[in-house]
Parts: sequence; structure tokens; C-alpha cells
Amino acid sequence: MATSSLTPSQALLARAISHHVSAQSSDQHRLSPATTLSLPSLSGLKSTTSVFSSSSRRRRLPHARSQSQVRAAAVETLDATAETSLVEKSVNTIRFLAIDAVEKANSGHPGLPMGCAPMGHILYDEVMRYNPKNPYWFNRDRFVLSAGHGCMLQYALLHLAGYDSVLEEDLKQFRQWGSRTPGHPENFETPGVEVTTGPLGQGIANAVGLALAEKHLAARYNKPDAEIIDHYTYVILGDGCQMEGISNEVSSLAGHWGLGKLIAFYDDNHISIDGDTEIAFTEDVGPRFESLGWHVIWVKNGNTGYDDIRAAIKEAKAVKDKPTLIKVTTTIGYGSPNKANSYSVHGSALGAKEVEATRKNLAWPYEPFHVPEDVKKHWSRHVPKGASLEAEWNAKFAEYEKKYPEEAAELKCIITGELPAGWEKALPTYTPESPADATRNLSQQNLNALVKVLPGLLGGSADLASSNMTLLKMFGDFQKDTPEERNVRFGVREHGMGAISNGIALHSPGLVPYCATFFVFTDYMRAAIRISALCEAGVIYVMTHDSIGLGEDGPTHQPIEHLASFRAMPNILMLRPADGNETAGAYKVAVLNRKRPSILALSRQKLPQLPGTSIEGVEKGGYIVSDNSSGNKPDIILIGTGSELPIAAEAAKALQKEGKAVRVVSLVSWELFEEQSDAYKESVLPAAVTVRVSIEAGSTFGWEKIVGSKGKAIGIDRFGASAPAGKIYKEFGLTAEAVIEAAKELS
Amino acid sequence: MATSSLTPSQALLARAISHHVSAQSSDQHRLSPATTLSLPSLSGLKSTTSVFSSSSRRRRLPHARSQSQVRAAAVETLDATAETSLVEKSVNTIRFLAIDAVEKANSGHPGLPMGCAPMGHILYDEVMRYNPKNPYWFNRDRFVLSAGHGCMLQYALLHLAGYDSVLEEDLKQFRQWGSRTPGHPENFETPGVEVTTGPLGQGIANAVGLALAEKHLAARYNKPDAEIIDHYTYVILGDGCQMEGISNEVSSLAGHWGLGKLIAFYDDNHISIDGDTEIAFTEDVGPRFESLGWHVIWVKNGNTGYDDIRAAIKEAKAVKDKPTLIKVTTTIGYGSPNKANSYSVHGSALGAKEVEATRKNLAWPYEPFHVPEDVKKHWSRHVPKGASLEAEWNAKFAEYEKKYPEEAAELKCIITGELPAGWEKALPTYTPESPADATRNLSQQNLNALVKVLPGLLGGSADLASSNMTLLKMFGDFQKDTPEERNVRFGVREHGMGAISNGIALHSPGLVPYCATFFVFTDYMRAAIRISALCEAGVIYVMTHDSIGLGEDGPTHQPIEHLASFRAMPNILMLRPADGNETAGAYKVAVLNRKRPSILALSRQKLPQLPGTSIEGVEKGGYIVSDNSSGNKPDIILIGTGSELPIAAEAAKALQKEGKAVRVVSLVSWELFEEQSDAYKESVLPAAVTVRVSIEAGSTFGWEKIVGSKGKAIGIDRFGASAPAGKIYKEFGLTAEAVIEAAKELS
Repeated sequence: MATSSLTPSQALLARAISHHVSAQSSDQHRLSPATTLSLPSLSGLKSTTSVFSSSSRRRRLPHARSQSQVRAAAVETLDATAETSLVEKSVNTIRFLAIDAVEKANSGHPGLPMGCAPMGHILYDEVMRYNPKNPYWFNRDRFVLSAGHGCMLQYALLHLAGYDSVLEEDLKQFRQWGSRTPGHPENFETPGVEVTTGPLGQGIANAVGLALAEKHLAARYNKPDAEIIDHYTYVILGDGCQMEGISNEVSSLAGHWGLGKLIAFYDDNHISIDGDTEIAFTEDVGPRFESLGWHVIWVKNGNTGYDDIRAAIKEAKAVKDKPTLIKVTTTIGYGSPNKANSYSVHGSALGAKEVEATRKNLAWPYEPFHVPEDVKKHWSRHVPKGASLEAEWNAKFAEYEKKYPEEAAELKCIITGELPAGWEKALPTYTPESPADATRNLSQQNLNALVKVLPGLLGGSADLASSNMTLLKMFGDFQKDTPEERNVRFGVREHGMGAISNGIALHSPGLVPYCATFFVFTDYMRAAIRISALCEAGVIYVMTHDSIGLGEDGPTHQPIEHLASFRAMPNILMLRPADGNETAGAYKVAVLNRKRPSILALSRQKLPQLPGTSIEGVEKGGYIVSDNSSGNKPDIILIGTGSELPIAAEAAKALQKEGKAVRVVSLVSWELFEEQSDAYKESVLPAAVTVRVSIEAGSTFGWEKIVGSKGKAIGIDRFGASAPAGKIYKEFGLTAEAVIEAAKELS
Repeated sequence: MATSSLTPSQALLARAISHHVSAQSSDQHRLSPATTLSLPSLSGLKSTTSVFSSSSRRRRLPHARSQSQVRAAAVETLDATAETSLVEKSVNTIRFLAIDAVEKANSGHPGLPMGCAPMGHILYDEVMRYNPKNPYWFNRDRFVLSAGHGCMLQYALLHLAGYDSVLEEDLKQFRQWGSRTPGHPENFETPGVEVTTGPLGQGIANAVGLALAEKHLAARYNKPDAEIIDHYTYVILGDGCQMEGISNEVSSLAGHWGLGKLIAFYDDNHISIDGDTEIAFTEDVGPRFESLGWHVIWVKNGNTGYDDIRAAIKEAKAVKDKPTLIKVTTTIGYGSPNKANSYSVHGSALGAKEVEATRKNLAWPYEPFHVPEDVKKHWSRHVPKGASLEAEWNAKFAEYEKKYPEEAAELKCIITGELPAGWEKALPTYTPESPADATRNLSQQNLNALVKVLPGLLGGSADLASSNMTLLKMFGDFQKDTPEERNVRFGVREHGMGAISNGIALHSPGLVPYCATFFVFTDYMRAAIRISALCEAGVIYVMTHDSIGLGEDGPTHQPIEHLASFRAMPNILMLRPADGNETAGAYKVAVLNRKRPSILALSRQKLPQLPGTSIEGVEKGGYIVSDNSSGNKPDIILIGTGSELPIAAEAAKALQKEGKAVRVVSLVSWELFEEQSDAYKESVLPAAVTVRVSIEAGSTFGWEKIVGSKGKAIGIDRFGASAPAGKIYKEFGLTAEAVIEAAKELS
């Protein structure tokens, strides 16, 4: 897949830490002196729309930090930065860039950008702190368009703000092959886009993860004399996001955690694809969010009420202990005389005639894709301003590094994604004499060993910490008043958990989030896991109770098709370790793969420590665990994964006693094995050996590839059952005897 | 899988319609004369705990229907039916049956049954209308234990009420192989259990579906002089269900639809597996439900406040236009002196010592599994009472049938699941000359044809009706005030939609719910789809935009691994039709499979009507579409599904022109093909022919089984891209040229 050639960590190493800003900062064009406190705006244009004087603002922000004077002056001002007429012109520029791009592609969603252009303008032009020339600057404000179908809003804003990723030609290539402006926002295609959205509700969840990361890192690394982590997370979500259950899950958590620097704009436009939201969505969103612990503000005129939007943001920032929902009532497709406020403007191009009518209606005389000079000039200050913001921060960080070298070194790891040297030495190893144990317990040993060496490791479970064995014993719970801790309590909210973890992973390359539930409940969070894979978020999914081996809970809790279903998913690692060494290997792989999520399927039941297993073997995905053949010519190959590998090993012993040359292969990760050289693969599974039997307590779907048409796959192609685990294994024929019988039949 | 030998339709045919109740009704033991209005209770025991006189009750029910006098007298009374001491004894019986069963199994969840026993007792003993000897009686009240891990509560209640499915020996076999008392409630194992729960949040969603079905059928079939459909749906959900996003989705819909006969008990016990809910769940649930349009009542003492529970139910019934949430604050593990109110009683046996302490604490002198005689005697009235209720209803139905023969015939189809004779003649057919069309449009033709002949067909989309093409043109929207209509507007709530559809399907064997979204968003609802498959709910999943063929929306919207992921799932039909005839065939299969859900993967893009496709072919899962070979010995077999079948056909033509003997096979459903005889399979895919090329716009995972190790599977093993569909097909190599090249390479 085409991806940005700039990895976040490269960008950070190249730009954020050792960035030379002299070129940009020497360009003083429209850049207010950073130390001047009294300037009401950055633009240099006369402000007539200021709603709060600087002093009244100070009063309304009782918790204003003494360290943030520069910051307050440079950014926290919500005074308009331009004449209202210019603001309107800028807003209409955003609208028409969206209209024109959708029209040219004849595909896309113009309605949301047209309605949300005012809040978009205020956010990117007046409120947010970012550096267009380094989209990965660590302390930037994060913006998430949860209503991702409206991506032309974000592309237009990135374009105006001066991001290199969205030039005019990119806008003209909207939704075309190989462009940087795909049909929904994709962080891996477009620097400046923080996360991948489109599937509704994911974005608000990612935003909760971003805000969690900020709160957590700020608590860990800020010092009374050095507030080096301090940014907001802004998100726009629509009616569709609101209807999705995931948004309620994560909003409940955001309220619980008191994520005061999360500010969500709810684009309340009363239209969804099927028409008026009245047909399916009549709940009262404001009180719902209040009941979830949010501060709620209603901007009744989101179309032209610029000052109301500004005031709302100001109020939101003043509320430090709660996230804020700003319900902004807008008109979808604002400006279109015949299609505004209707579903027809939601997901289709306006059509030439209506574009013309809209141009007339909004008095827009320009050619398609044209940005008027005064608008361009007005926005041009963001490049030097961004450079200056980053330079200031870099200076601050340099000072921090001097005073707090240890913390700075740790934080650098988190910022750059560089793993501390020798981290992998912390991984536990085992011998066949080590006590038998469930891989979920072995997983906990790994987590607790790794957390000592990985400053970015944090995570938790969806209310199954004591079953998933995911508690970090050195740490307490990440909570509203203890945000520096690393055990995250997600509650029974698997979907939200996955998507929040994506947000954490995408906040900083060195954050390594893990999350946990029973393997079968990946069904609840599959949409989030898929986005981990797509958006290159190296989340570690700790999935225990990975088969009928969980026993009595029965078929609702017993995964069957899940291994196959993830093996079929692109860009993900499905790992099913068999014992201690393989669990350590799985963690090594998972930690190293920062752009590919890993799912660790772990047993509830005890498993022996097998001779022949190794971390190195796991890294190859498939390898020989035992073998009494020579010349790469075994009579029989037995292949197993996870809790069935010992069954294969037991069967092999019996067959070897009968004089057979038997090889046992652990196929712990199909994806990693697939990536090995043909020679290596042949050395493990020689093509000439067709007597192959596999055993795995899951669907046999896909195993033909491994055992071949002459082999046999032993597995489970029905739902499970409620009974003690041993009984189910026997009844389902997952036994060494069955392996032996199959091998003999094939021989 | 072991299932109940009684299918619902058999049971209904055998019992409900022509049930002879004389045997039971001649047993007048504790049975109040059905025509007597004034009796305050059915038990014959003196009532001392009546909270409302019969007359005050009448006043407080302003909308009380004139037809329901007998019903009101027989059931709506919420006067206690026994002395409080006997109620307490019954409640403790429930507690100890749960304690003893979990103890014997040394596995399970005693905490919830111990806390919820009072509300359970009141529901099953005082409130609900059911017939223990016919668990499938059509007009029964439905009960759903959404907190399914507490299933011993329901088993104990079914046992006391006289259901044959839960005898003492079944309780003793709790969680054992082959028992009727599995680890979570499973409708297919235990008659009397309505749905399959355990995965949290599913049950409340199923309950919304059950209540929707009641409201819909009542609106369609009740007459001013014959209210033949009139039951409540009760559900108990816990903190875990509340945290799951799906519960917010469906609760929002229940409020929107005004499902007044849905009464949910929220077991507010402040404990989840990880400990106090304070660590992850501090939202205010009551106001949240009010904002969703529910009536909310709080019973502060759910442990012993019997009258409060009774009063709450009474109040809930009086609110006709809103569903009611009764928040019942309970103590988890009530009665256990050392473990009550702690997570340790949530999911583990108490242990012998604590069982003993609890026996002492609750003054329970009995042996394990003992039901005291007076409790047994008290509950014994439910068998004759249930028989009587059903007999009354049967009489009422007989009268209805005389007056409204057409409606009665239709309703019988819905009750029994018998499909109207000749229904399949309504399926449209096509010739190669029929215009090319997207299978999503052809799907709509089928839906609109079928709805004319299938009285139980109803459904809708998750806010994509105009994209999924699922509107039934003859009907309006199912809404609060138009519940007789059949287009259900689910909003953007895929997960809730699936689980609500499960509830609809399990309400009556003849209800045929369909639901729709983009195929990729099955990820949002996979947990519900899996439960469709497990609980044998024949939901039809209409999944459009089934590949990269959707084009510009890009990788977040393009399914890749989804076909494979469902082919690996047990008891489900994954169908991917290629044109009009195949779409009709897919609907035929889907309608006929009432105990197996079907997923129809349908194209956004236009497809030609192919020569050789047929309904009969689809019924076999795989079949020959074209062939110029003889003697079952083609040189080459090309295999395709859905939108790639025409590509295979095009490639075949070119190869045939070059003199090759080429067969084209449509593999529209792997599951159906797998079920055919070996001879048939050999006639389609002869083992001797190894030159096989498959083409499908999805993951190649699993295709080795079909093409063999010498064949080639053309597909997509990466994420998609945002661009016009034709461009992506070409760039991804999904072309006739690629098929031809592969076939030649293999030949």
C-alpha cells in the first residue's frame, strides 16, 4: 500500500528534536513577537469581533497556568483574527474547495464541509496550535474528524494552513488513485491527518485515546517549572457518530476520566443518509452527555455564529475537569439554495447546476479551487507561526533536558518511538523444567517485565483484568486524579477500548498500548482492530481464553472462527504462542511491530513448557520444535499452534516410538512465516512431504494451505459446548490419538 | 450440535393451535376461575402485602383496555401471591439452587442470582404470563436475562415454574457436557429460554426486538374486539450490559419507538468482575435513559423491597408510550456473609465454607438442591394456570379465526413458521437479455416481490436504505405511531440492528427479519451475527458494497477479509450472488433457512445477467455456469463468485476461442456446496483437473481448498484504495487478462 514516506519517528527525529527553524522564524511575516502579551490577535488585521477582552478572559480562566503566558497570548486568544468579512470569505473558500473537489471527483460528501466550515475555520485559523511544516511536532493540538466522510473539510483546512501534503493538485486529485486526498481521512496517506476515520464513531474514540495520552504524559513528565506537554484534542462528530454505540462507550470513559482537554463539536444538522434524523434519532443528546459527566454547550447558530463558537471554545477550555461537548446546530450543505438541509447534499456531488446556484447564492465569483488572495495572505501566517511554536517548544525541551535528563531521555523514547537499547533482554525465558502455566499468566509475566523497560507501555482490560492477567503490578490505575498510572480500566467496552488504544498508539510513536478481553469478544471490537491494521497502529491485543479450552462458559464464549478471521485480515499479526518462550517471542514481535497490530491468543488452561520452543522461532512465524528425521525428509509432519502444540508433540513421541521420522512444527504466526524466504519455508515444510496433520482448537478454514490437499486438518467446524475443558477436547476429537490415527491413515 | 428436539414451529403446531388443555385445566388445584374478576390473587393464599386495591389499580391505568378484564384480573395484579415469609422462602430457594449448582459445577456466577432472586421471584411467580408445559405458547410474556452469566437465576425460576426442560437432575448437571443447563442461557438448548445471552448487551437488544415484534404484530392483527397479541417483554441487565455500546444503541431505538411493553430491570449492584464499578463506570444511568426517552424508576432496596419492586412494575405497565427502566439497587451475592458486595462472588463458586456460612446466615437448613414443600406447593399452580392461559388464548384465537379468516391465516404463518404455499413463485427471474444491474438493486426487486407473499418479512437498514436498496415500497416506516409498517429505520446502529433482528426472528418462527449495511460494517455487528448463527435465528443480512467495487470511499469501506471470515463461522450461509438469477436464488435459500442466518454480499456496481446462472444452481452452493468440455474433463476450471463471475466468464470465452476446454463454476455459497454429495462435487470440480484459477475481489485466504495446491487464487491480500472502481480492479490485477495468464501458466 502506498504510504507516506515520512514515518512519524523519522519525522520527529529529523524535525522535532533537532529542527532548525531559523529559515522559517526569520520570516516575520504576520508573526507577532512571541513574547508580547497584549496583542489581541496574531493576524495584524484589526479585530472587530472580539467577544472577550484579554482581562476578562483572564478572569474567566481561574485555573490559567502561570507558565503559559506566551502560550495564552499566542494561541489561547479566541478573539477573531480577522474582520468578519474576511472570516466569511475564508469560510466560503473552505466550502467551495469542498464543493469543487467533490464535483471534480463526482464522488464525495459536500454537505458536512459546507455546514462545518465555520467551526473548521475557527479551529484551524484561530485556536489550534500546530506547525504545518512538521505535522508530527509532538506538542501540537490534535484534530480528529470523526465524521470522516466530510474529509474535504479537513483537506481544505490543511491546504489553507500550508501543509505540504495537501497542495492544490492534491485537492484536484480527490478520491483518485494514488492521491493524498482519499475518500476518507487516512493518517498513513496524508500527513496532518492524525487518525483514520470514516467508519462512524471511531474518530471520537481515537480522540479520547489522544486526550488520554496527553493527560497521562503530562502527569508523568510535566514539572512545576516546565509544562512541556500541553495540548488539546479537538474532534468533530456528527449524528451518525452519536448513534453508534462506541461513541457512548468512549464518552462515558472520557467523562469518568475527566479529560478536560478534549473538546468535541457535535455537528447537529438533523440530516443523515436516510433523511431527517427524526426517523431514527430523537434522543436528547445534551442531557445524555451531561449524565456521562461532560460539560455541554449549545451553539444554536453554527452557520454564521462565529462569536458563539469562539465563546463556546473559550468556555470549554475554562472547564478543566470535564470534557466538553459543543453541540453546534448547522445546516448541512449550507449555501446550496436547493439542496441545503436535505439528505441529497450528504453524500453526492451537488451537480453543475446547483454548484452554479450556490456560487451565486454565496456571491462567489471565483473559478473552481481558487483561494482568494486575501484569504491566502491571511492564512499564510500559520507557517511562520507554527515554526515559531515548535521552536519555542524545542527550546523549552532543551531546558527540560538539562534539568531533568532522565525524564527527558524517557520522553524522547516516547516521542521518537525508539526502543530503549537492550529492552528485549527483559523478556523472560523458560526451560522445559519451568512449571506448566497458562499462556495468559505467562503473558502477565511478560507485561510486568516489559513495563520496567518500556516507558510507553500502558493498557488494560475490558473488565477482565483478573482473567486476562493484564495488571501491571508496579502501577496503580489511570484515573481522573491519578493519570500518571498505567493500568487503564476500560470497563465492559471492548469496541471503545480498541479504538481508544488506536488513539493512544497514534499519539506518539513510542506509546505501546495493549488491551485485553476474551478472544471471542474481538467480535465486539473488530471494527477497531481492522482500523489498527489499516492505520498502522501497533496496538497489542491480549486475547485470552482463546478456545474451547475455557470450558464451562460455553459456545458464546468459545472462539472458533476467530484465528482464521484474523489470518485473513491484512497487515495484522495473529500470534498463538504455546508456552513461555513462545509467549515471550510473541511479545518481542508485538513490541517491535509498531506499525502493525498484534493479536496474542492466549490460553486459560495450563500448558507445559515444551522443549524446542524459542523466541527466535516465533520471530519466523513457523519453525521446527522437534524432529527425528534427517535430510529434511520426515515421514510425517505434525503442525500445531498454541495449546494444541503439546498435543502434536505428544503424538509425535508416540509415532517416533513406532519408528517413524516425525517432525513437529509450531506455526505460531502464519503472517510471519509467509514472509520468510522460500528456502526457509521449504526447510520447515518440505513440499515433498505430503503426510501432514495439523491440530488447532479452531476452524480448519484455511489450513488446506498448510497441510495440502493430501493432508488432514484437525480442528473444530461447529460451535463449542459448555462443559469442563478436558471433556470438550475429548468429545471434539482434539487428542493425540486422533493425530496419530490421522497420520497413520495418510501414511 | 445438540439442540432441542422440539422446533418452535412443531411445538406450536402440536400445542398452541390445537392444544388439548382439558387434562391440565381439569386440575383446578390453585387455579382461579378464569372468569372471576375480583380475586386479588391466584394463589388462594391470603395476601397481606397488597399495595394497590383492585379499584385503585384500575384508576391508575387510564388506558386499560376493555377487552382485557380477564387478563387484568388473572395477571396484571401485582398483589403479592403469598405471605412475605413464603416469598422470602421462595427467594432463598432460588438463591440456594444457584449456589448449589455453581458449587457442584465448581464453575459459574452465583452473585447475580443471589442479588436478583427477589425480582426474579416476583416476575415468574406474580407477574409473567406463560405456560410451563408449552414454552412456545405464542402470546407468552418474554423474559430475557441479558446478564446471561447469571443463568442459574433463570434455570432456578424455570425449575420452580414447572418447565420440563429444567428438572432437578438438570440443575445438578449445570455446565456439564450435554446438559440443558449450559454456562449461559441458550434458547436452542433449554426450552423456556427465549434467546442466547452471555455476550453482554445482546440480551437487552434481543428484548427490544421481541418488544418490537409484539408491537408490530399487535398493530397488524389485533382488532377492536379481539386483542390476540398482547404480551410484555421483561429483561434483566447488569452494569456490564449498561457499559456496552450496543445497549445504548438499542435503548435509544426503544425510546424512539415508544416500546411501552418493554420493562427492563437494571441490576444496579456496583460490582463487576474487576471490582467496584467506580473504577470505570460513574455515569448517571437514570438520566441517560430519560434522555433516551425512557420512563425511569428507582427501587432502592432490591434485596428485600418486594413491594417496591411490585409497585415499580405496576407503574411501568401504566406508562404505555415509553419503555421503562427499573433501576433496582441490589447486593451482589446477597446472603453470603463474607463475599456479598464483592467481585469474588461474581464469577466463582462460593466454596464449601462460605456456602455453609450463607446457609447459616439465611437460616437455610436444607440439603443442596432441595425445594421446600411449601415453596413447591406455592409454585405448582403455574402449570394449571399456564394451561388455562393458553386455553383461553386458543379459544380467543378460534373466535378470531372465524371473524377474520384472512388475518388469522396470515398470523398462523407467522406463529408456526410455515411458509405460504407457492411463495417461491414470487421470486423474479432473469434472462441474459435482462438489463445489467447491481445485485443490490436486484436484491431490492426480490425484497419487494417477497414482501407480497411473506407476511413475516420486515426489516431495514442502518441509515443506508437508499444505498443498500432495502426499502419496501408497499409499506411505510415502522415508527412509534405506525407500528404496523414494515420498513424499520435502525439509524447508524449496526450492532443493535443485528441483535434486534435476532430478537424479532426468535419472537415467532414465521418472522423473517432482514437488516442491511455496507458489507465492511459487518465488523460492527459481528457479535450479533455470530449469535444469529449460534441461536439459530434465520436473519437475512443484506450486505451491499461488497468489495473494492464500491470505489472512491476507499479502504475503510472496502471489505477484503470479510467473505473468508464468515466462511469460517459455523452455521451461517455466506452467499455472494453474481446476477439476477443468483440473487433470487440467494433469497430462496435465505428464506428457507429459518434456523441459519444468511449473509448476502451484494455489489454496488452494475453486473451483466449471465447465461447459465440459476436459482437451482445457487441452492447447491456451487455449479457449472458454462462449459465446453466433455466427459467431465475440462482442461481448465475457472471459479468465481459475485461480481468476479463475469470476469471468469469473459476469460473462459477467450480461452475457449483458443481451443481450450474451459469450465466456469460459480461458487456462490461454500457452505451449501460443501453439503452436496461427493458425486455432485466431483461433477463440478473433478479431482483430476488441477488447472484451476479462482477470482474473487477479497482475501485469497481459504481458496487453496478450492483451487488446490497446483491452482491459483486471484484475489486481494492487502487493504483497498480510494479511486474509481474500474481503476482499482485494474491496478489490483482483477482482470480477465490476469485469469487467462494464470490459466496458461498452470496449463
